[in-house]
Amino acid sequence: MALRARRLAHSIVGLGRNRGRLQVARDRGIIDQACGSIDEAVAGADLVVVATPVDRIADLVIAASAHAAADALITDVGSTKRAIVERVEGEAPKCPFVGSHPLAGKTSTGCRHAEADLFAGRTVFVTPGRATPAERVAAACALWEGLDARVELVEPERHDAIVATTSHLPHVVAVALAKIAPSSWPNAYFGSGWRTATRLADGDVDMWLAILRQNRSAVAAALRETGEQLEAWCTALEADDAEQLAEWLLQGKQQRERLGS
Amino acid sequence: MALRARRLAHSIVGLGRNRGRLQVARDRGIIDQACGSIDEAVAGADLVVVATPVDRIADLVIAASAHAAADALITDVGSTKRAIVERVEGEAPKCPFVGSHPLAGKTSTGCRHAEADLFAGRTVFVTPGRATPAERVAAACALWEGLDARVELVEPERHDAIVATTSHLPHVVAVALAKIAPSSWPNAYFGSGWRTATRLADGDVDMWLAILRQNRSAVAAALRETGEQLEAWCTALEADDAEQLAEWLLQGKQQRERLGS
Repeated sequence: MALRARRLAHSIVGLGRNRGRLQVARDRGIIDQACGSIDEAVAGADLVVVATPVDRIADLVIAASAHAAADALITDVGSTKRAIVERVEGEAPKCPFVGSHPLAGKTSTGCRHAEADLFAGRTVFVTPGRATPAERVAAACALWEGLDARVELVEPERHDAIVATTSHLPHVVAVALAKIAPSSWPNAYFGSGWRTATRLADGDVDMWLAILRQNRSAVAAALRETGEQLEAWCTALEADDAEQLAEWLLQGKQQRERLGS
Repeated sequence: MALRARRLAHSIVGLGRNRGRLQVARDRGIIDQACGSIDEAVAGADLVVVATPVDRIADLVIAASAHAAADALITDVGSTKRAIVERVEGEAPKCPFVGSHPLAGKTSTGCRHAEADLFAGRTVFVTPGRATPAERVAAACALWEGLDARVELVEPERHDAIVATTSHLPHVVAVALAKIAPSSWPNAYFGSGWRTATRLADGDVDMWLAILRQNRSAVAAALRETGEQLEAWCTALEADDAEQLAEWLLQGKQQRERLGS
């Protein structure tokens, strides 16, 4: 939709397993044509965008590269990058792939809720591998900038370390907070603060399982650092160290004010 | 406003240090009269509601009880209860006080943003002490039910253990999440998930410092339990234990679905 609204694509082919969803995409004018096999979908394509759970992306990128035009660009929208880029580089070194990760989540999913301006003003990480040719990196950046997104060019490992802290850690913490409340407690005990802090726990289980597994070492490191911070809070609380507690509350508030808007 | 809209109060007196705010309250018709001293404000009152940071509540309740009518009801809206109830019981055993805590937070504060229906459908904890007469407890319950709130009657210690888990823990965790991101990282690295998970960190520092200090042992216990859960996540991630991770993600999602709406 974003490509079409900006007249950046002539003909758009959708590939998916679920015929009902493909029909919705056709009805909404998101795709011109629906396909059930990757060779048919990708034949002659200038651009291939893989948008599946992260544990399926590398396979599909490699499969697509066997059928796409030699000067095509293949990219993805997965929330992890290192494992995907490493596997594609290892198994298909000539594959015209550049990894992408748009920070453009919504609570609603599926093409029923798709919108042409989803990426406008949002960050998109573009994560070339060591051997990716410069002109291919430029093509990936141009794609996202054409959709009015802001590109952040980072190495795949660096990307995964960033999102471990800014996205995967908050997800695990929201799940832990949700789990920690005794299941015998009634709804009436939980106010709007709890609902805000646990909102992320509502995410799709399989999608998040794949993300956490692919980024498990960076997520574990971020969790360990968080655990150390919570331990320090315990110590300060037990010592009734008002000065320390006030300093941390202020630091958190300032960081939130700096980054939250 | 809630009392007046329901015709439960004839004359409402506001006590505060800030003349500008008292004027706003008068302009909006929230109070009939503004006072600068507690003896004047409380003289002849049937009902006194103390709404200050929690470390000021017990002092004001005790001061009010010296001037209020013998059959008055004094209550509060503080987020902690044990320390307040214990101090009032210890220093003014005849004080007609019953502690309250409405779960009705808003992100905007001050009487400019006050609304008559804030408590409708919300939970209000009412937390009598061991020696509180039954008719006084009934009066406190009737007050909040008259404002269309749902009353949960619990002991002060139990109240503090509940909100340590459902409110104070999520606040500290949001602050810790906000603090953990390196201050050198640009705004562009942070997506909507991070903003949701850290929203609570924006709360007033002094108000939260007083809350955490008054409930420090229960909050420390909840933090320690959270730290143990995060450590278990680390272990499961490092072992790539998909079954365990999926189970926790599902448990968090189910709890969130049960309590989040």
